Amino acid sequence: MSSDYPHLLTDLRAQRPLVHNITNYVVMNFTANALLAIGAAPVMAHAVEEVEAMVGLASALVINIGTLSEPWIAAMKLAIAAAGDRGVPYVLDPVGAGATPLRTDTAKTLISLHPPAVIRGNASEIGALANAAVTTRGVDSTLAASDALAAARTLSQQFHTTVVISGEVDYIIQGDQQAEIHNGDRRMAQVTGMGCTATALLGAFVAVAPPFAAAVATMATMGVAGELAAQQAQGPGTFVPHFLDALAALSADTLKTHTRLVET
Amino acid sequence: MSSDYPHLLTDLRAQRPLVHNITNYVVMNFTANALLAIGAAPVMAHAVEEVEAMVGLASALVINIGTLSEPWIAAMKLAIAAAGDRGVPYVLDPVGAGATPLRTDTAKTLISLHPPAVIRGNASEIGALANAAVTTRGVDSTLAASDALAAARTLSQQFHTTVVISGEVDYIIQGDQQAEIHNGDRRMAQVTGMGCTATALLGAFVAVAPPFAAAVATMATMGVAGELAAQQAQGPGTFVPHFLDALAALSADTLKTHTRLVET
Amino acid sequence: MSSDYPHLLTDLRAQRPLVHNITNYVVMNFTANALLAIGAAPVMAHAVEEVEAMVGLASALVINIGTLSEPWIAAMKLAIAAAGDRGVPYVLDPVGAGATPLRTDTAKTLISLHPPAVIRGNASEIGALANAAVTTRGVDSTLAASDALAAARTLSQQFHTTVVISGEVDYIIQGDQQAEIHNGDRRMAQVTGMGCTATALLGAFVAVAPPFAAAVATMATMGVAGELAAQQAQGPGTFVPHFLDALAALSADTLKTHTRLVET
Repeated sequence: MSSDYPHLLTDLRAQRPLVHNITNYVVMNFTANALLAIGAAPVMAHAVEEVEAMVGLASALVINIGTLSEPWIAAMKLAIAAAGDRGVPYVLDPVGAGATPLRTDTAKTLISLHPPAVIRGNASEIGALANAAVTTRGVDSTLAASDALAAARTLSQQFHTTVVISGEVDYIIQGDQQAEIHNGDRRMAQVTGMGCTATALLGAFVAVAPPFAAAVATMATMGVAGELAAQQAQGPGTFVPHFLDALAALSADTLKTHTRLVET
Repeated sequence: MSSDYPHLLTDLRAQRPLVHNITNYVVMNFTANALLAIGAAPVMAHAVEEVEAMVGLASALVINIGTLSEPWIAAMKLAIAAAGDRGVPYVLDPVGAGATPLRTDTAKTLISLHPPAVIRGNASEIGALANAAVTTRGVDSTLAASDALAAARTLSQQFHTTVVISGEVDYIIQGDQQAEIHNGDRRMAQVTGMGCTATALLGAFVAVAPPFAAAVATMATMGVAGELAAQQAQGPGTFVPHFLDALAALSADTLKTHTRLVET
Repeated sequence: MSSDYPHLLTDLRAQRPLVHNITNYVVMNFTANALLAIGAAPVMAHAVEEVEAMVGLASALVINIGTLSEPWIAAMKLAIAAAGDRGVPYVLDPVGAGATPLRTDTAKTLISLHPPAVIRGNASEIGALANAAVTTRGVDSTLAASDALAAARTLSQQFHTTVVISGEVDYIIQGDQQAEIHNGDRRMAQVTGMGCTATALLGAFVAVAPPFAAAVATMATMGVAGELAAQQAQGPGTFVPHFLDALAALSADTLKTHTRLVET
């Protein structure tokens, strides 16, 4: 199924899905620009008074706990419940799960409230959600991605969800299915919010495709755009505008040609 | 009157007005940099405990409802009241009015509390404020700018305010006066916060000029800087830094030469 | 002591300190990217429910009052107390002190709660903290840096802290010690958050060095990176990505060669 993923980029641009983001302050501008660059329509809204109405307009919901506080948690719960009621798929980025109890507990609570279509995190974050004995270093993983595979499978089976572990190799897990994306560039670890951007793009792709294929398409898109941007960039600062340019310029053909996908 | 608009850029830089912004999280960095680039002094402050004091230092107030919540609405009301008391002009960006009741109702409440010098929105947002039967798609317009002209005239007459409808053509309406700016580049729709940036620059221009002339100068500045940036940019990512460079480099002469203004 | 400052850059990269930031909305993305570029690991967290736990993971704490509100003040107090208990150094950026009572009073309260390792501000802000009769214009200084030297010495002696006054010349004051950094570029004043970025990098350097040497290294790093970026930039917009590139590319040797340090 996931071998058809490049055409999802074409579908995404044709449909221009409205993606409602409840995300962290650090990355809002970057993820909004990434969603626009890939061809989606982003909206950010976090007030308890309006998140249900905004979910009602959206084709997907992105929940990111990167700068969490109580009013935002309340809004996330309302938005997730509304998404469940309306059949709007949602994706979860458990930023910093495993670093503080607030983050670990909130991510678990949100998942149990209504399972996300896709959970995307680094290895530590995914491990923490599956109760592995791991401490996330702020928002940085202390594990290799391959060390979180068992945790990802546990999560996937328990909640019937797709799990993405980001790292040098990205792993996409759904039940017994597994795909690996061997793309990307080391500069992506020197820029804040690349993981959050992957999750935002996941919101756009799950609006137009089933979760596993959407996750493959997203991680391939991120990795290939990262490689193309790295060819233009002189450092992590110039990498960012070139990455957004690469997202906007990326064709389904280029995506197909450049992706190093391993399915198992 | 608006034919003298290019010299307003010179006036703005000479006066370097302090512009107090209560704006949304997504665009804060971008609009602050745009205000600095054009020659103004931005400050962001949103606490109910300080907005009145900050308005007291400012030459203009920018209110943008893009990521609204109750504490911010309370601060906006206090700031607008203080601006009214002190004769500080304010501009309103009704981001997402027509998408959720919270946004539509808040924008209307703020306008009725004390009319803004200028309201700038896309066609859907302006239509929603004038009670047109329109649904804004998140923060995207579902109307052509020209379809909101009647709504803009209604708003302008009811509140004695200048109304700007942004789009491929920008319309500036004040009572019976109308100007059109036929500048800009398609890339501006691929970058988050270009509308919010127009509103922020409006804050700088209304600090040095009457609302209608300020609005003409602002939309001409945005459009011309956008065209100049597009010549340098390879995509929407590299467009942003070049747009800020173009704002900083823009001369009154270049502005005059490049602007395609139609007055009716 | 401060003559050894270039090797601190090497130490910083070797240790990759986790820097916990409670900072303002405008600069979060930029300061996170600057910390990554210089070789540190940033995390942003502001909820009262988690700041103590996050401080427990961090090597330094950055407090920046640029977009203050009551919930954030409460979190800052908890975080500073936790930093004091655990011996985690913290740095304070009193953005806008002297502009509104909320900012001046909050900065003073935080300092008296537990003195920062370093306070960095512009001349007006430092003056306001030492009760000089000065009004900060929003977040812009109304004084030359040299006019705040007496205030900086008073603050330094009263709280046994290092004080940095940023400006065309940066002054670093600790008791009787004084160093000046004569680097930088005029473009740095046209970009929002350059001061906040200096404070964020201070957080990284105080994690690996004593406060005075850390402050010298930070201001030299900022100034030299600014000069190198200015050689690549066409304006304030393109300056930003080149500045981040320059931070990432900066070697201890380049830093040593380019720094114009005056010690008195």
